[in-house]
Amino acid sequence: MLIIMQPQANENSIEKVIKFVEKQGFTAHISKGEIQTVIGCVGGKTIDKRNIELLDGVREVVKITTGYKLASRTFKPLDTVIEVKNAKFGGKYTGIIAGPCTIESEKQMEEAAEKLASIGVKTIRGGAFKPRTSPYSFQGMGEDGLKIIKKVADKYNLAVISEIMEISQIPLMLKYCDILQVGARNMQNFNLLKELGLINKPILIKRGLSATIEEWLMSAEYVLSGGNSQVMLCERGIRTFEPMTRNTLDLSAIPVVKKISHLPVLVDPSHATGLRDKVAPMSMAAVAAGCDGLEIEVHPHPECAICDGAQSLTPDDFCKLYGDIVKIADIVEKEVK
Amino acid sequence: MLIIMQPQANENSIEKVIKFVEKQGFTAHISKGEIQTVIGCVGGKTIDKRNIELLDGVREVVKITTGYKLASRTFKPLDTVIEVKNAKFGGKYTGIIAGPCTIESEKQMEEAAEKLASIGVKTIRGGAFKPRTSPYSFQGMGEDGLKIIKKVADKYNLAVISEIMEISQIPLMLKYCDILQVGARNMQNFNLLKELGLINKPILIKRGLSATIEEWLMSAEYVLSGGNSQVMLCERGIRTFEPMTRNTLDLSAIPVVKKISHLPVLVDPSHATGLRDKVAPMSMAAVAAGCDGLEIEVHPHPECAICDGAQSLTPDDFCKLYGDIVKIADIVEKEVK
Amino acid sequence: MLIIMQPQANENSIEKVIKFVEKQGFTAHISKGEIQTVIGCVGGKTIDKRNIELLDGVREVVKITTGYKLASRTFKPLDTVIEVKNAKFGGKYTGIIAGPCTIESEKQMEEAAEKLASIGVKTIRGGAFKPRTSPYSFQGMGEDGLKIIKKVADKYNLAVISEIMEISQIPLMLKYCDILQVGARNMQNFNLLKELGLINKPILIKRGLSATIEEWLMSAEYVLSGGNSQVMLCERGIRTFEPMTRNTLDLSAIPVVKKISHLPVLVDPSHATGLRDKVAPMSMAAVAAGCDGLEIEVHPHPECAICDGAQSLTPDDFCKLYGDIVKIADIVEKEVK
Amino acid sequence: MLIIMQPQANENSIEKVIKFVEKQGFTAHISKGEIQTVIGCVGGKTIDKRNIELLDGVREVVKITTGYKLASRTFKPLDTVIEVKNAKFGGKYTGIIAGPCTIESEKQMEEAAEKLASIGVKTIRGGAFKPRTSPYSFQGMGEDGLKIIKKVADKYNLAVISEIMEISQIPLMLKYCDILQVGARNMQNFNLLKELGLINKPILIKRGLSATIEEWLMSAEYVLSGGNSQVMLCERGIRTFEPMTRNTLDLSAIPVVKKISHLPVLVDPSHATGLRDKVAPMSMAAVAAGCDGLEIEVHPHPECAICDGAQSLTPDDFCKLYGDIVKIADIVEKEVK
Repeated sequence: MLIIMQPQANENSIEKVIKFVEKQGFTAHISKGEIQTVIGCVGGKTIDKRNIELLDGVREVVKITTGYKLASRTFKPLDTVIEVKNAKFGGKYTGIIAGPCTIESEKQMEEAAEKLASIGVKTIRGGAFKPRTSPYSFQGMGEDGLKIIKKVADKYNLAVISEIMEISQIPLMLKYCDILQVGARNMQNFNLLKELGLINKPILIKRGLSATIEEWLMSAEYVLSGGNSQVMLCERGIRTFEPMTRNTLDLSAIPVVKKISHLPVLVDPSHATGLRDKVAPMSMAAVAAGCDGLEIEVHPHPECAICDGAQSLTPDDFCKLYGDIVKIADIVEKEVK
Repeated sequence: MLIIMQPQANENSIEKVIKFVEKQGFTAHISKGEIQTVIGCVGGKTIDKRNIELLDGVREVVKITTGYKLASRTFKPLDTVIEVKNAKFGGKYTGIIAGPCTIESEKQMEEAAEKLASIGVKTIRGGAFKPRTSPYSFQGMGEDGLKIIKKVADKYNLAVISEIMEISQIPLMLKYCDILQVGARNMQNFNLLKELGLINKPILIKRGLSATIEEWLMSAEYVLSGGNSQVMLCERGIRTFEPMTRNTLDLSAIPVVKKISHLPVLVDPSHATGLRDKVAPMSMAAVAAGCDGLEIEVHPHPECAICDGAQSLTPDDFCKLYGDIVKIADIVEKEVK
Repeated sequence: MLIIMQPQANENSIEKVIKFVEKQGFTAHISKGEIQTVIGCVGGKTIDKRNIELLDGVREVVKITTGYKLASRTFKPLDTVIEVKNAKFGGKYTGIIAGPCTIESEKQMEEAAEKLASIGVKTIRGGAFKPRTSPYSFQGMGEDGLKIIKKVADKYNLAVISEIMEISQIPLMLKYCDILQVGARNMQNFNLLKELGLINKPILIKRGLSATIEEWLMSAEYVLSGGNSQVMLCERGIRTFEPMTRNTLDLSAIPVVKKISHLPVLVDPSHATGLRDKVAPMSMAAVAAGCDGLEIEVHPHPECAICDGAQSLTPDDFCKLYGDIVKIADIVEKEVK
Repeated sequence: MLIIMQPQANENSIEKVIKFVEKQGFTAHISKGEIQTVIGCVGGKTIDKRNIELLDGVREVVKITTGYKLASRTFKPLDTVIEVKNAKFGGKYTGIIAGPCTIESEKQMEEAAEKLASIGVKTIRGGAFKPRTSPYSFQGMGEDGLKIIKKVADKYNLAVISEIMEISQIPLMLKYCDILQVGARNMQNFNLLKELGLINKPILIKRGLSATIEEWLMSAEYVLSGGNSQVMLCERGIRTFEPMTRNTLDLSAIPVVKKISHLPVLVDPSHATGLRDKVAPMSMAAVAAGCDGLEIEVHPHPECAICDGAQSLTPDDFCKLYGDIVKIADIVEKEVK
């Protein structure tokens, strides 16, 4: 931590600042420049830098360490690769997750699984517990839905990913799912994240609608610090002023995160754009930008979908897209899994 | 719901749209204008309007009902007033909540309660479970903290408000608190909101960092629809591009919400700005804008606070501010409680 | 400027960085800490800090001087007070500007001026050149409008403020106006700002829709550095994700700017909210937060206004508001002018 | 325009609304539904919908026509293709613009032009007038710079694009440039746009930092409505809360704009991200998403660049990227020009 004093700060102010940080356990190194004094602080506990910024004569406090440690590339220089059944995410692999937004019936999931498996998909998605903005909307099939997705996934040898909304659902999710998804609205549900740090299945953490990349990595840190090293991140659009898409897909997050972290970064173009005809171009763009996976909504009959049909691809559209994805992945030296 | 067809939409497209909505249980009323056809839809279930927007020839779908019902002024024209011990929020009352960010010790809380009560405050705040961005930060005193806040509140006849982070904490919170606070990060923790709809203590719902006012009211609707009519809203800053304040306090939300909803709207200037010297001007502005209450962080010794000391007022600063608030409240015909 | 090296940066990297900055004219002061090396740089020319951040081994570069100098309180500790005819802005004065969005006719302006003067207003506004999003909208009366506003202002002894859109309009504006307003969309029209630095009438600079406070002060710096010291700032809402108001009025900007700059800060609640019934609460909030002035749209017959009638107050509404503003100003120790 | 009345609106209110719109020249078509009345309005002049929304009993007003006409695909269904010398933008062509941020010297431009031409680039960029946030920064070489870029472009048979900042520069720009660029900060400099509508060289309009897609198209409409049909759009990042990139590149804007408009959409990944190592992934992503062109900063010696060196590619990096772009363009059935 560096404390930059104001140019006009006097000796008295400087001494008070030093006493303050030493009281917090830091060792202070003073460097008097021609214009202003800078105090470097080493050791000490985590501190709210605003506490120092409010002291007399202080201009600014700069933290020179990141809040996340286990999630950083400094800690682990090599890419984390997550393998689940035949799927692989991270490193040289681009894993494709596809399936309906919501599990509606065995017929629907059977049809989806059969098509997706035939195209080459290795992980199927489907929600059993649905976070809905309105209390009056359909809230998901619950365990009955989980039974269905597991049954069809087993039949076609697919891995299962589904969203967990709450700590009490953990045992249920572990029974039926291979990857547990934390939704955007739960990205900072810290109690849930702590519990997910104690299990040993991969966790996919969606980026919150207004979460900075640093906060997103801090949420990953919650899981990692509990002992679960299998964490994947998924960009799904951030909230901006632009109304023509549901959210603004922040594809720059891919190279940004991959530089500072070893964790796989996926992209969900379906929720980000909210519109079927934007899903293919954004999927291809994400792969071209180097993402480690995609999560795409595909429904056998989008026009009848209970939820988010408008952003679901038909199996035929998805099949065409899958072919293009494989070609682009090849250019960026990735293998689709 | 109104479906506005494109100017060039043909008869065939129009018929397909009508069939589609009738299948969903709507009655369609067609109105052919000189330029384009508009189809009014009555009855029917909740529907994702994008499903219709994707049909051929459709230009736009406009919902003409709000998602929230119980939270709207149409449903309940008169202001909801919430009374807890001697505190009152809503209608002609501006309730003041004050206290430290975090419960740290009995000594700290005793000192805070004594000062606040002497100034005239009727509700004390203090966190026992702290949502922290970093897993390595102090996470709160838990039940020990709740015992302390209840003890000092009882001594000075204050109401207690504290933040609940998770369903399993409900029984504990009910034992020690008069008002349960849902934090900004949990504003869309729908499972938690549903459970809070089943209790009969007031719930204060903070606005999420990137929540629209409509989403905020939908979260209130979750609690109201469970049967708990004692809901208060609290604006605490939204996330924008401006880095000089922690968040951007959206004071316009006060008159906006008060026009469309009967629920009390409070303001938390401490978290919004994140800086002590901005708390007084923003508190006074909030009262001038007609808010129904304030939640202000006050710490007997901010420089020693474990958490958010930088945004906490000293008791003396708060005392001065309280006097100014009373004067401004008088101008907008409100009574401070 | 401080260059913070990465913990693992080696001697070679450090030397390269030092050579680089010395080549740019800086003197480097090296401070080797236990964890990492920090290089303080003094002197040297303005430099893009990213150029250094891209060098090997560099973690972060922190600028420790602000870009604005003449606009800062360090340069001029006392409040700038701007006096125009009977109006005063800044210091202990809260100046009120009122009038229609657009100059429409002499009858309209005469009626407006007569009412406003009788209430106590000392500065009248009215647009002659209108920046409109659509090329098909009314673009203003031009010089004919300026003649009208000057005529009625002279009759009632009011100062005139009007918006300048373009360098070529300067001579015209100087002839008819006492204060020249730079609109939000022109806040970074640097060529225009430079020219306005050469005149000696007050300039009011509206904050751009997505301008940070620092950028806003840099725009003021353009005018100040040209030699014109009479600059006022006006907050008028920033663009956020919230759709229920036209923009989000950032009232925290008042105490933030007043701490770091000596320039007067005004607020335009009319453009910020875009809705008449939000103007009064936001005006009162702005005064309570300590603003140095307000710019409010008032139209003798808002329902017939060519432009922005929806956000214009009637003279009666404004009269009531003016009375409340005077009372609140008194509480914050300001005098309404 | 549709006026949706509130459910409880009475006959009196409805009649007043009808009278109001008829006075503005509209013909009203009343449609009384079971729940509420909807009034369709045809004809009439451009109107601020808030004026109607403020009338008693009105719930919402929905405009059913767009503000832009000439820019829309309804007006011109086929893609506009812009050809300048050997470059092509739009339709099946992806035009590549490359070159330094700022023209610094003939040596620099000669070196850049020689390398770029050898790689296959057909349009060179370089700024002669620089919009700088600080009045103390380098403001460009002016006409001397334009002479240099024209000279080297002629030698290598390249088209020239450069930024115009102000109406008075038009004659100069026309003399030396093939394409005139309107910067993000000038996107709503309506006077400038109007003048650019009167010339007959292509105009590239960068998206403002906080401009919605609709506003961006309205700016294009200003140029188109003046008679200049050669307009290109360029996405260059929007302002959001995320600090890790300079701006957030909104690649979804590509498919969104291409659906509603016939104009070519380019992408500037250099200004959007502000960081050299993010330029290649974002360029490839933009091409995969179907953009009609790229504008990339390339400097023969980025480490010595006067301006924005941190976001400039070296010629070698650019050469590698160019090869990848050609391959991805092929997958999306575009030809690089």
